[in-house]
Amino acid sequence: MIGASTHPEKLGYGVARNLIQSGYRGAVCFVNPKGGYLFTRFMYKSVAEVPDPVDLAVLIVPAPAAAESLRLCGERGIHAVILISSGFREAGATGVALETKVLQIARQYGIRLLGPNCIGLLDTHLPLDTTFLPPPSPRPGEIAFISHSGAICAAIIDWSLRQGFGFSRLISLGNQADVNETDMLIHTMLDEYTRVLTLYLESVADGQRFIDETRRVNRQKPVVVLKVGRSAGGQRAAASHTGALTGVDTAYIAAFEKAGIFRADSIEEMFDWARALAWSPLPRGRRMAVLTNAGGPGVIAADSLENEGLQLADLSPETCAALTALLPSAASLHNPIDMLASASSIQYASCLRLLLDDPCVDGVLLILPPPPMYPAVSVAEALIPIIRNASKPVVVALMGSTQIDMAAERFQAAHVPEYRFPERAAAVLARLTERAEFLSRPEQPAQVFMDIDADKARSLLTEDPIGSWLAPEAAEGLLRAYGIPVASIKLAHNTGEAIEISQELGYPIALKIASHDISHKSDVGGILLGIDSPESAAEGFRTIQDQVRKAKPEADIEGVYIQRMIPQGQDVIVGAVHDLKFGALMMFGSGGVEVEGLKDVAFALAPLAIDEAERLILKTWAGRKLTGFRNNPPVDLEAVKETLQRLAQLASDFPKISEIEINPLRVFEKGAVALDVRVKI
Amino acid sequence: MIGASTHPEKLGYGVARNLIQSGYRGAVCFVNPKGGYLFTRFMYKSVAEVPDPVDLAVLIVPAPAAAESLRLCGERGIHAVILISSGFREAGATGVALETKVLQIARQYGIRLLGPNCIGLLDTHLPLDTTFLPPPSPRPGEIAFISHSGAICAAIIDWSLRQGFGFSRLISLGNQADVNETDMLIHTMLDEYTRVLTLYLESVADGQRFIDETRRVNRQKPVVVLKVGRSAGGQRAAASHTGALTGVDTAYIAAFEKAGIFRADSIEEMFDWARALAWSPLPRGRRMAVLTNAGGPGVIAADSLENEGLQLADLSPETCAALTALLPSAASLHNPIDMLASASSIQYASCLRLLLDDPCVDGVLLILPPPPMYPAVSVAEALIPIIRNASKPVVVALMGSTQIDMAAERFQAAHVPEYRFPERAAAVLARLTERAEFLSRPEQPAQVFMDIDADKARSLLTEDPIGSWLAPEAAEGLLRAYGIPVASIKLAHNTGEAIEISQELGYPIALKIASHDISHKSDVGGILLGIDSPESAAEGFRTIQDQVRKAKPEADIEGVYIQRMIPQGQDVIVGAVHDLKFGALMMFGSGGVEVEGLKDVAFALAPLAIDEAERLILKTWAGRKLTGFRNNPPVDLEAVKETLQRLAQLASDFPKISEIEINPLRVFEKGAVALDVRVKI
Repeated sequence: MIGASTHPEKLGYGVARNLIQSGYRGAVCFVNPKGGYLFTRFMYKSVAEVPDPVDLAVLIVPAPAAAESLRLCGERGIHAVILISSGFREAGATGVALETKVLQIARQYGIRLLGPNCIGLLDTHLPLDTTFLPPPSPRPGEIAFISHSGAICAAIIDWSLRQGFGFSRLISLGNQADVNETDMLIHTMLDEYTRVLTLYLESVADGQRFIDETRRVNRQKPVVVLKVGRSAGGQRAAASHTGALTGVDTAYIAAFEKAGIFRADSIEEMFDWARALAWSPLPRGRRMAVLTNAGGPGVIAADSLENEGLQLADLSPETCAALTALLPSAASLHNPIDMLASASSIQYASCLRLLLDDPCVDGVLLILPPPPMYPAVSVAEALIPIIRNASKPVVVALMGSTQIDMAAERFQAAHVPEYRFPERAAAVLARLTERAEFLSRPEQPAQVFMDIDADKARSLLTEDPIGSWLAPEAAEGLLRAYGIPVASIKLAHNTGEAIEISQELGYPIALKIASHDISHKSDVGGILLGIDSPESAAEGFRTIQDQVRKAKPEADIEGVYIQRMIPQGQDVIVGAVHDLKFGALMMFGSGGVEVEGLKDVAFALAPLAIDEAERLILKTWAGRKLTGFRNNPPVDLEAVKETLQRLAQLASDFPKISEIEINPLRVFEKGAVALDVRVKI
Repeated sequence: MIGASTHPEKLGYGVARNLIQSGYRGAVCFVNPKGGYLFTRFMYKSVAEVPDPVDLAVLIVPAPAAAESLRLCGERGIHAVILISSGFREAGATGVALETKVLQIARQYGIRLLGPNCIGLLDTHLPLDTTFLPPPSPRPGEIAFISHSGAICAAIIDWSLRQGFGFSRLISLGNQADVNETDMLIHTMLDEYTRVLTLYLESVADGQRFIDETRRVNRQKPVVVLKVGRSAGGQRAAASHTGALTGVDTAYIAAFEKAGIFRADSIEEMFDWARALAWSPLPRGRRMAVLTNAGGPGVIAADSLENEGLQLADLSPETCAALTALLPSAASLHNPIDMLASASSIQYASCLRLLLDDPCVDGVLLILPPPPMYPAVSVAEALIPIIRNASKPVVVALMGSTQIDMAAERFQAAHVPEYRFPERAAAVLARLTERAEFLSRPEQPAQVFMDIDADKARSLLTEDPIGSWLAPEAAEGLLRAYGIPVASIKLAHNTGEAIEISQELGYPIALKIASHDISHKSDVGGILLGIDSPESAAEGFRTIQDQVRKAKPEADIEGVYIQRMIPQGQDVIVGAVHDLKFGALMMFGSGGVEVEGLKDVAFALAPLAIDEAERLILKTWAGRKLTGFRNNPPVDLEAVKETLQRLAQLASDFPKISEIEINPLRVFEKGAVALDVRVKI
């Protein structure tokens, strides 16, 4: 520990104290250039004097001295350093330079560096505590917490003491000059004491690696994230609907979904969920029973469960009969089961056992307001052995404070998840159910299509400058190169060409204005439909140009695109934008000109496995109606999935495609075809 | 107190104890047929022996004896009784009979009755406590709580003790044989100690009266409701889109909105909001400042504020300059203001004062994790006088437990709203802002149109049996009687009539099948558009009948309706369903055949003031685009508002209209016209 201090108000004292008090079983050596003693230990004047082996150096020195200290660590052959000090990137330009220098030395000596500007890490099982936080330390537990904020570490350690859960590890990442959140994931998962990973994130350093690693981790141990910074920063200017509908948070939402991890909306929610995920068995289904001694809380629980998408179990006739025998006649046996205020510990225990034995029940929400007749703690004591031995989750809503204190402590000590009110308990059962469903869903690989012509696509993308729109023929060619059917479109420069192309494509045809300056053609009279003769093609050619010139005189018009009219079908929008953090972000939904108003769209990150494509589609009304609605027959859902997957592959292969949008994609009983496509470089 | 008991395990003992211990300043007399003494007081053998005056009787006797006890109260001239006992309506058929009998006696003697099956009421200021709940009682406070559940009263009393707020009154309504939630509202509002009313509701006894009373109350003192039973009960079968889109909770949502009251989603939320509403001044606008000593919690706060629809204030240059002078250079002066971990009590206090003095700041979210350098309580003490004297709200997010305990207690004692994390504090600032905006909005009366012909409407509604659809001519007449323009529609029974009517209406015309058995005409080929000659009218008459016979052979076809084709415009849906609790429930939104899938609809209760109609319209995309979108010019929003108001008046005047739906209402640059209307009796 370099920078140990004998002054109790200094951080270098706090870290030294915690290193000793944490009970770390290896050697702890203090370094201070002045020498002397701290906690009855000799202080070395230099890291060079510290005897072998050294696994880790904790560094608290003023920022300007950090680089030199780190160099000495490197010379000494130390390969892991926690740099606690602040005064780096977070403190302006001088700090940035100091941080760059520190990182450079770390790289030079092969040092992995946590920090700077962090409170270090804490492992309750090793045990090891490199923080300077005042005692008490957190209790040992099963939850790991990785955080971009040191202050939040400090606050939740203190908060957790009364919430009845402990931590396996806490890691404060600080400025992440070297080690970042993703680096810590796998190592934390491998820790045998850790059962759940929780993360407070302000951003993600490397989007693709984060998704890959969290996917792996999350298959083994559940990951719960609180991601902030949703509303920070303005919306970037977007050219297409897909771009306009993408918020700052859209890609993160899609990333967390792709990794199958839980996203909490608040700190309390994150740890509500985490301790149940650490302690409870997972339910086999969505059918929940509510056991209560009062009607009101039972109704709240029923509401909350249904609101979370869970079901109120229909009890088996055997269970109903047994409950009838146990309970007074005025009790309510229809789930929620209301045993009435007179319910004793024995009735609570017997009813809970019956519910857990019922094959129609997948989990139980148990409500315990202060029972008027018995102390809550005696009920808790009767229930704990049953809950501990159950193969189904039981989540407890303990209502009150002074009268349920002891009961809460017993439940916490027995690792039974308990919450103050039924609403939070219901949310926890929902997360357990979702976790079970996630684990039961086999991981499907994203399909990679081989019948594509990447060279052709590349050649079509070389010509246009950044920020420009691809010419329609090139955009069309791009889709064709990736096996997406497109309605042929050709450019006519004059009436003669218009007639010629029309004859070649066959009637009826549609005419669309060709102009780089116009992104929404129908807004300026730039579309004519149902042209069915050479004469009307020629006339249409003139009309469309006149209309556009009138609506937008400054637009540079190249001519008119001609396309064969396509039979009726269902129209949807399919698009992708390139997200700088996570790559191709796919959109699907209701298209047309009202897409931005209706907002019937959903997003997912590329690449898309077949089940991901299906989930994306079915999130929207546009997608659900593909399976048929009212008198409209079902259309080819498979073709839409394939289009989405192929477009995802195309957008992933070419990051220079900033936005690509098929609007509409027309879907038939058999097949689907892009009627219009726009590509921005 | 009738039914006083010397047995400590009996409820009649608990009530007697609380009556004495509450410190009620009037006389308390116990009645027990056996006589004897309780708490050193003589017990009367009968209520008849109790000396005058008697303001209130509290009754705990077995249910079968309650009626006779109540009769004796009546004979004795007592006009207010709380019946605590259970065993009535909640306990099956025998109980229902007992409750009916009790109510009958209450009516006979002019007794107002609270209960049965309740825990009575508790007034901390009078003081009076008629409950049997074990001590400690709640602290005196400013929040009144009216509840349909006694168990929830008991739980929140206990819970509130550690949450740092008190109650003015708690009222357990029980079975509401006589007195219900609405009866209690005005009286509770008039209580001088009550500053906020909170309600736990499982239903509402009389919808219209509830709305009228809560509107009145809410103008004086804020009302916060937790309403449960949202998902209970199945959806009733609905014939129209309006009906199908109305959930069990839709009318309640609309009712609470109409009354301008807050609806909480959980018990914690209800009291989070209530204590800030009781203690804090209201902000003048939506611009909030965040003051913190750590970055992470500041980001959470900023996210939460924006998520709640509030804005991060842009500080004035003067404030920025003053903050710069006060804080270290590494501090962040861009709102959130991060003073860094070194922030002292003095810095907290000075910065808060600057923010409160800044005219660009409407309120402050103050974040206090355990400060590394100073005890949190010293910061609290420095802040409290400033917050108490401020004319703007300051809400505190205290993070932790053991290290912020004392600070929390000081804040609570000083009536400064404090919450464990920034997310909850942000929600509270949002409610304060909404309250301020509500109070600044003048109450607009619903417009009553006089140019209507109610007699004509009544005559059109007499002919059809319950459950039937009104004939289109009658439905059309109904709208006309209430001044809503309708596109003329006439029934042709044969091709001759079809030609004759077409000539009379003028071309182009639309044909629609006439059949009581068909509710969605376009689904069965029952609509033909753009008919422009007598010949095609005759041909269309045959085609449409052939198509419908093929699609739905069992349908009884009366003929074909003929309507003049209407120019293009924007189409919306306008409807109403009769809600048994709250009357006419109005719907507005995107119409067409996909209305049920798109769900771009919103609801409000009739009657509609002009601002209510506007808010209803602008909640939907269909409504927002009436003001113009892309190349579509704005259309006549006023005409839509008027149509909604007139339809609301019609639906309110005739409760026998179970569903009425205009789909579409076509809106032009000037005016709007109903193209199709369906009315169910």
